[in-house]
Amino acid sequence: MVVTRSLMGAGPQPSCMLALSFLALVLWSAPGARALDNGLSLTPTMGWLHWERFLCNVDCEAEPDSCVSEQLFMQMADLMVSDGWKDAGYQYLCIDDCWMAHTRDVKGNLQADPQRFPGGIRRLANYVHSKGLKLGYKQMSLALNRTGRSIVYSCEWPLYMLPFHQPNYTEIRQYCNHWRNFGDISDSWQSVKNILDWSALHQDTIVDVAGPGGWNDPDMLVIGNFGLSWDQQVTQMALWAIMAAPLLMSNDLRHISPQAKALLQDKDVIAINQDPLGKQGYRLRKQGDIEVWERPLASLSWAVAIRNLKEIGGPSPYTMSLASLGRAVACNPACVITQLLPVKEELGFFEWISVLKTRINPTGTVLLQIKKPTLS
Amino acid sequence: MVVTRSLMGAGPQPSCMLALSFLALVLWSAPGARALDNGLSLTPTMGWLHWERFLCNVDCEAEPDSCVSEQLFMQMADLMVSDGWKDAGYQYLCIDDCWMAHTRDVKGNLQADPQRFPGGIRRLANYVHSKGLKLGYKQMSLALNRTGRSIVYSCEWPLYMLPFHQPNYTEIRQYCNHWRNFGDISDSWQSVKNILDWSALHQDTIVDVAGPGGWNDPDMLVIGNFGLSWDQQVTQMALWAIMAAPLLMSNDLRHISPQAKALLQDKDVIAINQDPLGKQGYRLRKQGDIEVWERPLASLSWAVAIRNLKEIGGPSPYTMSLASLGRAVACNPACVITQLLPVKEELGFFEWISVLKTRINPTGTVLLQIKKPTLS
Repeated sequence: MVVTRSLMGAGPQPSCMLALSFLALVLWSAPGARALDNGLSLTPTMGWLHWERFLCNVDCEAEPDSCVSEQLFMQMADLMVSDGWKDAGYQYLCIDDCWMAHTRDVKGNLQADPQRFPGGIRRLANYVHSKGLKLGYKQMSLALNRTGRSIVYSCEWPLYMLPFHQPNYTEIRQYCNHWRNFGDISDSWQSVKNILDWSALHQDTIVDVAGPGGWNDPDMLVIGNFGLSWDQQVTQMALWAIMAAPLLMSNDLRHISPQAKALLQDKDVIAINQDPLGKQGYRLRKQGDIEVWERPLASLSWAVAIRNLKEIGGPSPYTMSLASLGRAVACNPACVITQLLPVKEELGFFEWISVLKTRINPTGTVLLQIKKPTLS
Repeated sequence: MVVTRSLMGAGPQPSCMLALSFLALVLWSAPGARALDNGLSLTPTMGWLHWERFLCNVDCEAEPDSCVSEQLFMQMADLMVSDGWKDAGYQYLCIDDCWMAHTRDVKGNLQADPQRFPGGIRRLANYVHSKGLKLGYKQMSLALNRTGRSIVYSCEWPLYMLPFHQPNYTEIRQYCNHWRNFGDISDSWQSVKNILDWSALHQDTIVDVAGPGGWNDPDMLVIGNFGLSWDQQVTQMALWAIMAAPLLMSNDLRHISPQAKALLQDKDVIAINQDPLGKQGYRLRKQGDIEVWERPLASLSWAVAIRNLKEIGGPSPYTMSLASLGRAVACNPACVITQLLPVKEELGFFEWISVLKTRINPTGTVLLQIKKPTLS
């Protein structure tokens, strides 16, 4: 079974972002692959997707509040606007599987389940658009059709299909705005760790192909659910920003802790994720239980994430030479460093020869932003 | 290497508890095994133990606040009194490994490291006792000595030593107040799950041997650290109560969230753990992703824990016939049920033929207390 996801009502991004992106790119290189030229996803898509949290619950009689229904999506749309999600950048409300009826309509078209979506997808789309949001939904196809290519390459290609068929990401990029590389995420630290390990192991293949218009998708954010500790939620948010990953939350916006909400709406971290240069970050090194990841940003800035892989004991001290970061230019001749996660803290002015001392919680991550000093 | 843990300054428990225990026990059966008759641990030991959180950090120059030192234990002793831990029942302050100097004193005795414990164990013990707490510490022995038996069986017998040597718990019970059954815990959900799985798998061997004076020890509580989500912390607390496990926290009482503190100091849950009947609970059944555990309590009450093993999606509904609980007598002919975790809620009066509907978060647990209705 291969699947595609459609984005309804999505107009092109503001052109100022395009301009910025172009300006920054020339400092690096032309993108390695031609992007899908539909004006979408010049930065990674941000939104809400029902799957990890609500799965294929179609029993609205037993569980009216958590079945996949028009009501669920309308409630989420309301909250995306009223609770600051839209303002933070989360624009797309996405329906994954399980919205369809078992039968087609009289014209032979797929249709939404009439009990759970009494107004059909059309009414839901109108509602969502009236809120200034965009609706995304997924169609399933059991065989290739005339748009087969696009369908095959779109999304959610499970890993077990890959051993004999290394995907051609350059080709995928011509048809898709983002594509899943690995298996489905679940609400567990083991799952997040597996995705991060896979991404680091395959970074030589996947990092360079990402850029404005096309992104690797390590799957949904499960922040705000049940399975991750606070430090593990920080790690997911920080690393999804480093990886320029689509930020598609799958949680229940009706029941989310203030702490998880603040993390998901963190403006500085989102700014890294949405950086207009559009270069995906990578793991720079692994030293014992510490991993250092970095991502080049526009204006010659960098983001750096330091992960502690330990799952025992207290915070680990880690001392890092600044000259080792950002291809030796991030802090050359000097830089200003701000810690963004786990809490924001201005660390100040540093010279190229300096070292930075940090402490990282077990399973947690320290996310830093490194900027050129402002001339004054 | 085999190890033992000594408890200094520990007097016998109040005799009222003994009386209650005796009264309740006759309703069941005489304990299957003779207990160590030292007056200790008539209920599972409660306290703080440095190991999981502070490990063998002996570098007080680089990390003065988190090395294993007199200062660390004195700070914890202060907080145990000032922050309500002692009042909640946490009486023992326990030192695990790494307190000793590499050399013996002039009399050939083991001695504390003079840099990190300048007043020796004696001064620390006096300080701890002055706070109304008790000090526990561990001695290592590389070979059996004349008290060899006691040493061998005391604590931390790693699983890998067992395949050819199934421990004789009846014998262990004659020498120890509690004994480790499984490998060391770490600050991860996988570790807690492994311990719970092992305990359920071996319950026919380990449950009946536990009782006043001698307890199975599934290892430290890691609540308040970095690796467990809120629901996973609830699961550890609930199941350690069901298993009549020693409640030995390993965390940093100087830095602990109010939520974790409230969970660890939950009077109702501690009362289940410390129930004077002293019978260990067991897994009653596993149905798909749901496990039901139960524990008989004094006064014909029961504790019931319902675990959701799922690591994806939202809370799972579960409907349970009350007649199936507590050997068919817990709610016969009627009972009053209180949900203790994840939040306290009086669920009210139920008849034997009733069902109870609950919802359990992924990786979380609902802990219930079932009592006989008060006659009025």
